[in-house]
Amino acid sequence: MRKFMDEDFLLYSDTAKHLFHDVAKDLPIYDYHCHLNPSEIYEDRTYENITQIWLGGDHYKWRQMRICGIDENLITGNAPDREKFRAYASIMPEIIGNPLYHWSHLELQRFFNIYTPLSPKTADEIYDNIAEQLKSGKFTARQLITMSNVSVICTTDDPVDSLEYHIKLKAEGFGTKVLPTFRPDKAFNIADAGFVSYIKSLPAENIDTVGKLMACLYERIDFFASVGCVISDHAFLEVPYAEATTAEVDKIFKKRLAGEELTALEAEKFTTYVFMKLCEKYYELGWAVQIHVGALRNNNKPMFEKLGPDTGYDSIDDACVARKLSALLGAMHANGKLPKSILYTLKPSDNYTLSTMLGNFAEGGVRGKIQFGSAWWFYDHYEGMNRHFKDLASLSSIGTFVGMLTDSRSFLSYPRHEYFRRIVCNILGEWVESGQYPNDDEALTAIVKNICCDNIKAYLGF
Amino acid sequence: MRKFMDEDFLLYSDTAKHLFHDVAKDLPIYDYHCHLNPSEIYEDRTYENITQIWLGGDHYKWRQMRICGIDENLITGNAPDREKFRAYASIMPEIIGNPLYHWSHLELQRFFNIYTPLSPKTADEIYDNIAEQLKSGKFTARQLITMSNVSVICTTDDPVDSLEYHIKLKAEGFGTKVLPTFRPDKAFNIADAGFVSYIKSLPAENIDTVGKLMACLYERIDFFASVGCVISDHAFLEVPYAEATTAEVDKIFKKRLAGEELTALEAEKFTTYVFMKLCEKYYELGWAVQIHVGALRNNNKPMFEKLGPDTGYDSIDDACVARKLSALLGAMHANGKLPKSILYTLKPSDNYTLSTMLGNFAEGGVRGKIQFGSAWWFYDHYEGMNRHFKDLASLSSIGTFVGMLTDSRSFLSYPRHEYFRRIVCNILGEWVESGQYPNDDEALTAIVKNICCDNIKAYLGF
Amino acid sequence: MRKFMDEDFLLYSDTAKHLFHDVAKDLPIYDYHCHLNPSEIYEDRTYENITQIWLGGDHYKWRQMRICGIDENLITGNAPDREKFRAYASIMPEIIGNPLYHWSHLELQRFFNIYTPLSPKTADEIYDNIAEQLKSGKFTARQLITMSNVSVICTTDDPVDSLEYHIKLKAEGFGTKVLPTFRPDKAFNIADAGFVSYIKSLPAENIDTVGKLMACLYERIDFFASVGCVISDHAFLEVPYAEATTAEVDKIFKKRLAGEELTALEAEKFTTYVFMKLCEKYYELGWAVQIHVGALRNNNKPMFEKLGPDTGYDSIDDACVARKLSALLGAMHANGKLPKSILYTLKPSDNYTLSTMLGNFAEGGVRGKIQFGSAWWFYDHYEGMNRHFKDLASLSSIGTFVGMLTDSRSFLSYPRHEYFRRIVCNILGEWVESGQYPNDDEALTAIVKNICCDNIKAYLGF
Repeated sequence: MRKFMDEDFLLYSDTAKHLFHDVAKDLPIYDYHCHLNPSEIYEDRTYENITQIWLGGDHYKWRQMRICGIDENLITGNAPDREKFRAYASIMPEIIGNPLYHWSHLELQRFFNIYTPLSPKTADEIYDNIAEQLKSGKFTARQLITMSNVSVICTTDDPVDSLEYHIKLKAEGFGTKVLPTFRPDKAFNIADAGFVSYIKSLPAENIDTVGKLMACLYERIDFFASVGCVISDHAFLEVPYAEATTAEVDKIFKKRLAGEELTALEAEKFTTYVFMKLCEKYYELGWAVQIHVGALRNNNKPMFEKLGPDTGYDSIDDACVARKLSALLGAMHANGKLPKSILYTLKPSDNYTLSTMLGNFAEGGVRGKIQFGSAWWFYDHYEGMNRHFKDLASLSSIGTFVGMLTDSRSFLSYPRHEYFRRIVCNILGEWVESGQYPNDDEALTAIVKNICCDNIKAYLGF
Repeated sequence: MRKFMDEDFLLYSDTAKHLFHDVAKDLPIYDYHCHLNPSEIYEDRTYENITQIWLGGDHYKWRQMRICGIDENLITGNAPDREKFRAYASIMPEIIGNPLYHWSHLELQRFFNIYTPLSPKTADEIYDNIAEQLKSGKFTARQLITMSNVSVICTTDDPVDSLEYHIKLKAEGFGTKVLPTFRPDKAFNIADAGFVSYIKSLPAENIDTVGKLMACLYERIDFFASVGCVISDHAFLEVPYAEATTAEVDKIFKKRLAGEELTALEAEKFTTYVFMKLCEKYYELGWAVQIHVGALRNNNKPMFEKLGPDTGYDSIDDACVARKLSALLGAMHANGKLPKSILYTLKPSDNYTLSTMLGNFAEGGVRGKIQFGSAWWFYDHYEGMNRHFKDLASLSSIGTFVGMLTDSRSFLSYPRHEYFRRIVCNILGEWVESGQYPNDDEALTAIVKNICCDNIKAYLGF
Repeated sequence: MRKFMDEDFLLYSDTAKHLFHDVAKDLPIYDYHCHLNPSEIYEDRTYENITQIWLGGDHYKWRQMRICGIDENLITGNAPDREKFRAYASIMPEIIGNPLYHWSHLELQRFFNIYTPLSPKTADEIYDNIAEQLKSGKFTARQLITMSNVSVICTTDDPVDSLEYHIKLKAEGFGTKVLPTFRPDKAFNIADAGFVSYIKSLPAENIDTVGKLMACLYERIDFFASVGCVISDHAFLEVPYAEATTAEVDKIFKKRLAGEELTALEAEKFTTYVFMKLCEKYYELGWAVQIHVGALRNNNKPMFEKLGPDTGYDSIDDACVARKLSALLGAMHANGKLPKSILYTLKPSDNYTLSTMLGNFAEGGVRGKIQFGSAWWFYDHYEGMNRHFKDLASLSSIGTFVGMLTDSRSFLSYPRHEYFRRIVCNILGEWVESGQYPNDDEALTAIVKNICCDNIKAYLGF
């Protein structure tokens, strides 16, 4: 029996251990997609206890606590922090096999040097231990980032954002680059209730044509670029593809501004148009575009009204993706303006479709121009990452994969990169030790370095 | 090489063996969904030979025999019982890797103490051995149940059922509780040919409004409850969700009673309405609702006309499930009347959608309110159960899972619980022995007990 | 650590090694679906270097080279052959885990006795070695086939094909049977741009009714049969099923001949009608029909215009398949004219639907009448074949499976059968060694022989 989550955690062969310990472990982290709050980095946020860190905003944990029947008061309510932590500790045995179990322990180990398994029995001891350590002042936002060896962070930012904190952090010379990501979903989700007021919030006068809208967005893109942005991000329930003329889209836009209802097709035409125009600009600037597909959000209306979005009430959609995605990327490619693209799905049943989609639109001189992004959100666990990696390898050229990101709101989530790297090294080790790939250390070392950081560095030009 | 199906079958580590032999093996069975005939239990059915037991009604076996090219006369026809058994034995090598292979041998081992592998060569010897044993009178329906350590059986019953045998069994004090399950599909499948005559068969006068229909069904639910029923069951090819007013549904109902054709949307509105009204009642009584989605039934018309439903001509549909299921459950949740729900699918490509759906509608104080039910029917095998369990663990809190059921028509099918328990113990053992979970025997014992029986006991209030 | 791709490659137990080396390895190959060019066999094509063999027409390799950013000039352009080979060698580390990696090395080993791993460093040495060997004249098309122990090859041929080379090869008495396959897609793809001119190219006067069309196609089928054809092949993006009267289909046909646009439903009616009529004829002749579903082709328009179809720009669709496939097969079955059918998908998320579909339409006396065909194209790799085999076994009777085919354009692709056989023997070995199946050598030997060649021999009557 192996020891619980020791240094060889998830590494089941000598080659795997060698690749992880001697190659992957100490490589810097390029966390090219996350939801950290740049003001918290700039202001170097501090914490008093583990509940603030772990349970203040992590809807992954909230969700599992609810499934286990924990009362909402102990989750997002007014219960004391110690009680909330005990409640989380109480579900530890229930979440055996869930990534939260491993992530929680990796975080205890790496940041707080705690190797005791968390359980109802050890909850108080661990709570006190961490509270004590936090008093040292060594666990601020910036210190957590620095001790995680993070080279670059790409946050997720709305076009209207002032990027004030990114600019200040750059000016200050914080060791980790903190760059913005352009996330303009609100500008094309024309059917959303808040669309009209969002358009009014954009920094341009009288945006009453789609031409003016694009001009304003292009200005914001240029501004983001000036602050170091090299990547954008978009989420779709379903991939849009319905082309229309500018005149037609203009009419749809005006109709919506006038408060009229749109058909689904009208909304899709608008979204397609704006998205494709944005991608033209990204292409010209050499940016990459990220497309997240298939989250079915805010399923619980009463809780949405109470807590808002991103509070643990999302799940996974199962609509078709192949034809529209092919058509959308294909149209941009045919126009000669398809940017580097990272496609993300939430479920392994899309793996074959996405792994082969990326081969349709390659470009000479660009390694892995279209990427099947890392297993994301619900999909981001031991079983899922293994499935994603092996399927992608089976259907594409895994050596060009740009690898892991945290997608996280927490400063403690960097061990997810370690988790990914262990899984990658273990699969490579498995292939070598079983005679499926030669024991060529030079080649293997390069593969590990590429997937863990060199590919993304080259891809985004860091 | 391990011995064929010995006591450590499917248990590949010491922890797995310990958890199965010392914890799981002797736990009682709560078979909360099956298709046993209560009159056969009450009348304590007897058998003369293994063909009557195995091949009299088991369309799983019929199906594989047909795939192997066996003539129908040897399956459902007039061939002598011995010949039919030989025909089944003849396909044993063909079904290597199929759960029937394992189930058949588990049944031979556990009930008849036969450890000889079944094959064309051993067919006669095994046939004769069992015929001899059956003469002892020790293998009646009730004895088979009793020797399987079954605490509760939930049969599947139509609203019009008198529940005569459930009542008699209770009166007699049979050691195993035999409870009905309310299965009202015929009352909402408005497009079915038999719908109008079914409505006429309901025990109420002149059901000519949906109000009267619901009143009658509610009375039947109360009656079922009085006989100990705590769970209902429903099957949909596709999840319905199209809300409509009572007036509108009433019009649809009358139209159908008048013999007119309905549109697909009208039928969906009716089904949605009746189903949601039923769920309100279940909620009030504290019942659980089971939803089985995705069986594409009766694909072979000539054989359907000859043999009827449930004769081995069903397969697996692949329609989308996420949005309508979210909308349906969400609407009931928003009304404050969502009952405990168990969602079943037939295929692993739905695992992610269902495993995350259940997190959307949790309730404080209820462990695992929405369940992703056990791998079912075609899905109920070694590969499927492993996939289901690991995916559910990766995406939810597996410790709250209510576990296995037989879904069977046979008194010999209880070893499927053993099969499930071996798989569960083996996965837990794998996690512990590989260092993914601490070797905490107290916690592991509780997890095994919960999944094998304590969760379902608490969930259904047994 | 095991040696790289040695004689026990992919065989992880003693039973697996025994089954492969003593049973599977030397069995003849029945390659019942491929895209070899019969004129190249007849004319006994020769090669000067490995680039001509490997990179002249293999869009699997082109695709991965493009993904890795190789310039098109080094793929399908005018670069010198040695440069192209170096370019392919340069992506070897990138395609770790991809079947191309294994196939390439199996081909180097089996045909050229080269055991050096291909890499940028060894590219020139291997290029020169092979160029030298090719001078011996021992590597012509026919010799490559003969040294691969191939009993039967079924090529893929259009109804208008003269089958000249099949006839000549038969007359000459080439040791391997080279038989045609009837692939009439162009005759029912009524919406395709080339449809009308294709109809005019058929060898019959004035085909202006669907009756005349079918008469002509039936004549071609009889002609194909006279040359030894026993199987047909068809590809659908989506399974068609929309029945219509002959009169209605006739009208659709005339409309198209007159140059008018058809609706999607009209096209589907036409395709359904022609396909079902073809299947009637296949049934009468005892042929098998192959149905390939779900390839999303020619996604890259500019490259399609430049290079045409089958050049590496296809991917995997994700539309639903269950209901239409059930309806289509069911209608033919109900008419008593359903031929033996082999259903192929490109992705494992269809495995459950197809594995159960085949049980709906069995026929007494025919082993495995409906087949879930081998993992195909993108799906044809270690992970995919394992998944396909285990799912098919879990849901059907794997012993009746007709097994592997190359689907290839290359005379060097026969080691894919070896790859498949290793995987099959390894899974069977795993089941035996883990106690899931008895160590019954006679039964196991028969299973291996059946799946590797006896089933397909019986199925197609070779």
